[in-house]
Amino acid sequence: MASASAVDTREIVRGQLYLADMDGWFSHVVRVRFAETDAQGIAHHASYLVWFEEARVALLAAVAGGYPAIRARGIEALTTGVEVTYERAAVFDDVLTVEVRCAEARGARFRYEYVVERDGERIATGSTRHATVDATTRRPVRVPEWLLGDLLSGSTQSSGS
Amino acid sequence: MASASAVDTREIVRGQLYLADMDGWFSHVVRVRFAETDAQGIAHHASYLVWFEEARVALLAAVAGGYPAIRARGIEALTTGVEVTYERAAVFDDVLTVEVRCAEARGARFRYEYVVERDGERIATGSTRHATVDATTRRPVRVPEWLLGDLLSGSTQSSGS
Amino acid sequence: MASASAVDTREIVRGQLYLADMDGWFSHVVRVRFAETDAQGIAHHASYLVWFEEARVALLAAVAGGYPAIRARGIEALTTGVEVTYERAAVFDDVLTVEVRCAEARGARFRYEYVVERDGERIATGSTRHATVDATTRRPVRVPEWLLGDLLSGSTQSSGS
Amino acid sequence: MASASAVDTREIVRGQLYLADMDGWFSHVVRVRFAETDAQGIAHHASYLVWFEEARVALLAAVAGGYPAIRARGIEALTTGVEVTYERAAVFDDVLTVEVRCAEARGARFRYEYVVERDGERIATGSTRHATVDATTRRPVRVPEWLLGDLLSGSTQSSGS
Repeated sequence: MASASAVDTREIVRGQLYLADMDGWFSHVVRVRFAETDAQGIAHHASYLVWFEEARVALLAAVAGGYPAIRARGIEALTTGVEVTYERAAVFDDVLTVEVRCAEARGARFRYEYVVERDGERIATGSTRHATVDATTRRPVRVPEWLLGDLLSGSTQSSGS
Repeated sequence: MASASAVDTREIVRGQLYLADMDGWFSHVVRVRFAETDAQGIAHHASYLVWFEEARVALLAAVAGGYPAIRARGIEALTTGVEVTYERAAVFDDVLTVEVRCAEARGARFRYEYVVERDGERIATGSTRHATVDATTRRPVRVPEWLLGDLLSGSTQSSGS
Repeated sequence: MASASAVDTREIVRGQLYLADMDGWFSHVVRVRFAETDAQGIAHHASYLVWFEEARVALLAAVAGGYPAIRARGIEALTTGVEVTYERAAVFDDVLTVEVRCAEARGARFRYEYVVERDGERIATGSTRHATVDATTRRPVRVPEWLLGDLLSGSTQSSGS
Repeated sequence: MASASAVDTREIVRGQLYLADMDGWFSHVVRVRFAETDAQGIAHHASYLVWFEEARVALLAAVAGGYPAIRARGIEALTTGVEVTYERAAVFDDVLTVEVRCAEARGARFRYEYVVERDGERIATGSTRHATVDATTRRPVRVPEWLLGDLLSGSTQSSGS
């Protein structure tokens, strides 16, 4: 999954490990459920956070053995922040591509970025922030090396319905 | 909460404890959230299960010290079945009264009944079935006497937003 | 999609059109989202109604040009009843097969049946009832012949993530 | 609802109308539903957007005749952006106060700010951005004066379950 060049483009800047290359983007496809629409006739804005999460889980499954594997090692990833900008509405039965990448990881903190597209047109962007904690003590633990390496070397794979 | 007459109307029939009196009904008020509507302009049919659950939790809080108290005693109540009949649509911002009562309890099994009303008009009815299990072993445990007594003696209290 | 034999097994009994053959079952795959779990560590019971709906929409897409096409003809399908029996819990990331078929259609009324399986083991069953109405007047309209024929002749196709 | 002093504290800076006074905050109470929790045992992060919306609707009901009244005048408010920072987890049955105020309104654009508290302790903050459009043409329309005045003059009322 990880090409040498992808690794080479990482830069360590003031203790932060950035993933600068575009190869880190992972594509996940969702179809808008009827239950996700609202009385404005469009997908409710909270649905995007659920799609982001589904895409993030699919990315982890592709590059790090899956979120269940991470939890099996006693690590939980808490969500500490989210941000979404909506550019165009999505409607029932739309097929959307959620592009996701791990944009930054430092210590016990992660940040993912997202672009939602429909037929090649961008309809929303966003990001989520996370902290890894020990599942038992709930205390912060550094992002494990094996996870960090896999995530930041990225993937161009895709998944979806 | 429990009147003597309410207790008197209980009948034990073939090992089943029925609550026959109407005083067992408990009222809980919900207001339809925008996120609960769908592109048909009405409250999505799955929302009713969430309202039923909220009403059930409010009933337990009134008569049995609350669901958290039950969980603190090492008991979980699993949902084993649901059934809803929709008579009229609810729309955004509707104020609904969810009437709930524990209609039956036997061994490790419970059944609740629900009536949803808007301005005194019935818009839906339903029921849910539950089984009590040990929170650790997940094995069935009989509904505790203290819980059974409180639930079946009912309440005419109400709660809500 | 419809084999001759599938059509032959339909029976009209007391004005009701039943679909008796097993070929009518359509398979749709869902993966349990983290957002669909609850604090009991399992998929929340209301999630099944959303999966049923997604499976129903996929069936309609396969045999009747899709729900958007039906709405384009000025017909809405309201949900008038649901029923679910839960046999085993589903957990995060489980891959589930939702089998769905249109079990009955009469006048303006439909009924679908569902079986949810994980690794070939049944974990839940259910059914939903629907009424077709004119999208503008909201008055009942008979299930159109073209839709009825397609639905009841069934499909063995599958879809899903 | 609006005190003279509240109005006086408004400032127009570079074409933007700010509401600087703290009196603009409106309190809305929610109780965490079991359906809103996830397998981490906490309220799912997407739930906060639904609570924000419920608080916003309650604010509009208090100061501007309610969102249904706004829709009745042919205006829809689209959500164009959201942002949440999570500081502490909320759990099932927690009683939360969602403080909301309209922090900014300019042309066809609104911005609301939120603070979520539990027992006086802040557990999350956030903001949402909105655009008012004509419900029929979906084209931007300026925030009506009558709505603007009511919103920015604020309220110290509260609502909730």
